[in-house]
Amino acid sequence: MEITVAVDCMGGDHGPPVTVPAAAKLAQRIPGCRILLVGLEPDVAAQLRRIHGDVSRLSIVHASEVVEMDESPALALRSKKNSSMRVAVDLVQSGAADACVSAGNTGALMAISRFVLKTLPGIERPAIASALPTLQGHTYVLDLGANVDCTPSQLLQFGLMGSSLVSAVDHVKRPRVGLLNIGEEDIKGNDTVKQAGELFKASDLNYIGNVEGDDIYLGGVDVVVCDGFVGNVALKTSEGLAQMIATLLRQEFSRGLYSRLAALIALPVLRAFKNKVDHRRYNGASLLGLRGIVVKSHGSADSFAFQWAIERAAEEVRNGVLERIGARLSSEREVA
Amino acid sequence: MEITVAVDCMGGDHGPPVTVPAAAKLAQRIPGCRILLVGLEPDVAAQLRRIHGDVSRLSIVHASEVVEMDESPALALRSKKNSSMRVAVDLVQSGAADACVSAGNTGALMAISRFVLKTLPGIERPAIASALPTLQGHTYVLDLGANVDCTPSQLLQFGLMGSSLVSAVDHVKRPRVGLLNIGEEDIKGNDTVKQAGELFKASDLNYIGNVEGDDIYLGGVDVVVCDGFVGNVALKTSEGLAQMIATLLRQEFSRGLYSRLAALIALPVLRAFKNKVDHRRYNGASLLGLRGIVVKSHGSADSFAFQWAIERAAEEVRNGVLERIGARLSSEREVA
Repeated sequence: MEITVAVDCMGGDHGPPVTVPAAAKLAQRIPGCRILLVGLEPDVAAQLRRIHGDVSRLSIVHASEVVEMDESPALALRSKKNSSMRVAVDLVQSGAADACVSAGNTGALMAISRFVLKTLPGIERPAIASALPTLQGHTYVLDLGANVDCTPSQLLQFGLMGSSLVSAVDHVKRPRVGLLNIGEEDIKGNDTVKQAGELFKASDLNYIGNVEGDDIYLGGVDVVVCDGFVGNVALKTSEGLAQMIATLLRQEFSRGLYSRLAALIALPVLRAFKNKVDHRRYNGASLLGLRGIVVKSHGSADSFAFQWAIERAAEEVRNGVLERIGARLSSEREVA
Repeated sequence: MEITVAVDCMGGDHGPPVTVPAAAKLAQRIPGCRILLVGLEPDVAAQLRRIHGDVSRLSIVHASEVVEMDESPALALRSKKNSSMRVAVDLVQSGAADACVSAGNTGALMAISRFVLKTLPGIERPAIASALPTLQGHTYVLDLGANVDCTPSQLLQFGLMGSSLVSAVDHVKRPRVGLLNIGEEDIKGNDTVKQAGELFKASDLNYIGNVEGDDIYLGGVDVVVCDGFVGNVALKTSEGLAQMIATLLRQEFSRGLYSRLAALIALPVLRAFKNKVDHRRYNGASLLGLRGIVVKSHGSADSFAFQWAIERAAEEVRNGVLERIGARLSSEREVA
């Protein structure tokens, strides 16, 4: 299966020096994957010239503007019609690409994607979904920040989309879906979550009820649904805690001679541990609910992390995530 | 300074076998601290007989009932007027104790405390506050679950209480207060948080603006304010992630002979690390906004952790937290 991914090379903290080598490595690694490198031609071409090995499946698409990381989404949408981000999304809309990836401004990417690609029938608001590691594998959480206030029916739509995504990508037949709440009992939580619980129960989702924050990491649930405010806080809190733990571990292992020797000896073990919790392997959040596949990379992603985001986009195409969500939503509409 | 703490010995997952030894150790360790052991007399006395050393500053207060961990708070309040939890709070109300500690049902403890002690003037709803470790020390977060929906002015009250708590306990003159949001810009977040931001700016708090989830652990803020839904998710998510990381670290260090040897050698370093992030040292959440000091211990606390909760209660008495919050609220009212 031939898959074409449009990569916004200018987005993120690093731009072409990170995005171009990542795209090249991925195209060399995954058979049948073509990459359209979208960005300022001279900058992209300069990086492309530094790539060793086969570059036949990479081509440059010039875009004359760049969306800044702190730019207003509305402004980026209105005034930068030739930005690398916009052109990458346009390529999906025209059918020239099957998916696109950007490490740029999340708000701008969402605004441009909604405007250009439109939402799927039955979806009021797209959501951002990402996998987080668990003891047994991973859990998908959505929404991670696109929608600060959600209605119960929007939360149900997130559940349907998340469930379809996991079915498609992880080949799980009936993913377990939970609603993020502050207690397991039905009476807990705010009104929106309580009403959403009723909708989930009445749906044909494999709904396991309320879950709490710790359940995200303990592996008993496949899809955790919440509004974007709560999801974003959960994600960022996790990032902060993981960063603190890593720093403290490093500090302790470099405190004095004995600790340094111990660190040397423990190195293979610590490396194996680090691999397991390496957040870079989870880079790539899906903008779900659009008529096209759009993946957002972390802005600070390095080349290794950015490859994972491109791979996620390719996997979603390969597994027909869009068709799966579309079919799920239309069957839900027939029931209703 | 003589301080008397009433301890609900029946609360939590373990009851007297954990709470009584913890209380005894604390009374032996901290000069001037007296403990009232509240609970079923035979159960408490049986544990007390097993204590070695001085028990002269421990006395038993009989209470004939126990609030169950999953009991409805309303029911516990109405029908169990002689529960160990209720009696412990009553002792604070009557002045026989300066503070009380319970590892029991959070909802019931909050309901009983509000009913018996009442809220401070200017406080609509009490909040639950706890310290979380950071790279530099710790950050207080509130509310952690008492209030699922909050108005902007309630969030401001949380900020005032949190700031007073940190001033009193940590001797920080002007604690940095942040509003938990999903971006640093003023335009981010939901309406409640945006309006709260305006109130914070107009207050005399040392308000540093919006903070994000990762800031909780990075040490640039002393008090993080949020509604109880968001705070509870942040806390539980942290617990889940920390538990997963600890499990994975243990797994990697016990995988095969080399890893086990490395673990032996790295043991002192790993122990030092564990001490730094030991959540038991952060056990004890303050129920703020009441006319009395009430501390909630984690239900699963062991004896070491439970001691920290009692010590927190004693520290709040010693540092005049109640008076500090009261003075702050009344000066705020004069300004308004």
